[in-house]
Amino acid sequence: MANIVYIATSIDGYIAKSDGGIDWLNEIPNTQGSDYGFGDFMSRIDGILMGRSTYEIVMDYEVWFYTKPVYVLSNSWTQLPGKWAHKAQLLKGDIVEVIDTLNQQGIINIYVDGGKVIQSLLAADKIDEMIITRVPIVLGSGIPLFTPDLPELKFEHTGTETYEGGLVKSSYVRINY
Amino acid sequence: MANIVYIATSIDGYIAKSDGGIDWLNEIPNTQGSDYGFGDFMSRIDGILMGRSTYEIVMDYEVWFYTKPVYVLSNSWTQLPGKWAHKAQLLKGDIVEVIDTLNQQGIINIYVDGGKVIQSLLAADKIDEMIITRVPIVLGSGIPLFTPDLPELKFEHTGTETYEGGLVKSSYVRINY
Repeated sequence: MANIVYIATSIDGYIAKSDGGIDWLNEIPNTQGSDYGFGDFMSRIDGILMGRSTYEIVMDYEVWFYTKPVYVLSNSWTQLPGKWAHKAQLLKGDIVEVIDTLNQQGIINIYVDGGKVIQSLLAADKIDEMIITRVPIVLGSGIPLFTPDLPELKFEHTGTETYEGGLVKSSYVRINY
Repeated sequence: MANIVYIATSIDGYIAKSDGGIDWLNEIPNTQGSDYGFGDFMSRIDGILMGRSTYEIVMDYEVWFYTKPVYVLSNSWTQLPGKWAHKAQLLKGDIVEVIDTLNQQGIINIYVDGGKVIQSLLAADKIDEMIITRVPIVLGSGIPLFTPDLPELKFEHTGTETYEGGLVKSSYVRINY
């Protein structure tokens, strides 16, 4: 049972510009068409839980990237908007309870995505793994992956891979000691 | 001519706890006594420029780590305090002008250390290299390496090494394009 962060950040820890922009991610050269291990990662998860803002970004994509069930957590929406609404399921409630319910339904290893979702789970010490890809840019400002006033959480580093374009992908597993 | 950052941060980008504490750095296992490449790094710089707060930390160390001239930038001190005062030189003035003066004196490649020194130089786009070692801990709060409202700065990733204790050291060189 694991809640797993899989995300890219700038060197200074932003996941998007202040307006949500991710042009700086799309500019990364990728001449070999690497998926940066995303396929392997998808194969080991049972589902994806994302917040409303993340869904609002992916709902505009031409391609639906996800090969596992997608759950969108929003306590304001009554239904999912956009052309991919049939691909995802809207969930409501407290995020920790939502995850308990998903676990009971056999969705055990969950890719959790979106700034607020990740913050809420870090604050509750419910993040078990983090796979963070550092992009070689200082954005200077934006939406941070980590907000201040989280608890102190120790992790074990389980591996680092580098990719074209200067990406550095490090994997961490939560440890208590 | 290069101003070089060489620093360790938590996964969430802090260089110290809010009270300046770095116990979390001292807890890292190092059974082989690695210097993490610090000796090699020292051999390629001509001097170290640090701020007052950083000097206040290193002045209490039992050992003086630096094998190159150390300059302490403080516009409030009139002399350096502590047992290592004879090892360093107090400088005053605007940081960019101070660096120009050092360059003219043959101090060409400068290890710049301390949160405020690094921020000031990033804000002025005067950082040429960054060697950042990520420690596998989320501190949750503290003194950040990168403050908000810096300019956008692109870097080239030149290498990553990993060490015992889950340290991931990545090197970056500033690029303009």
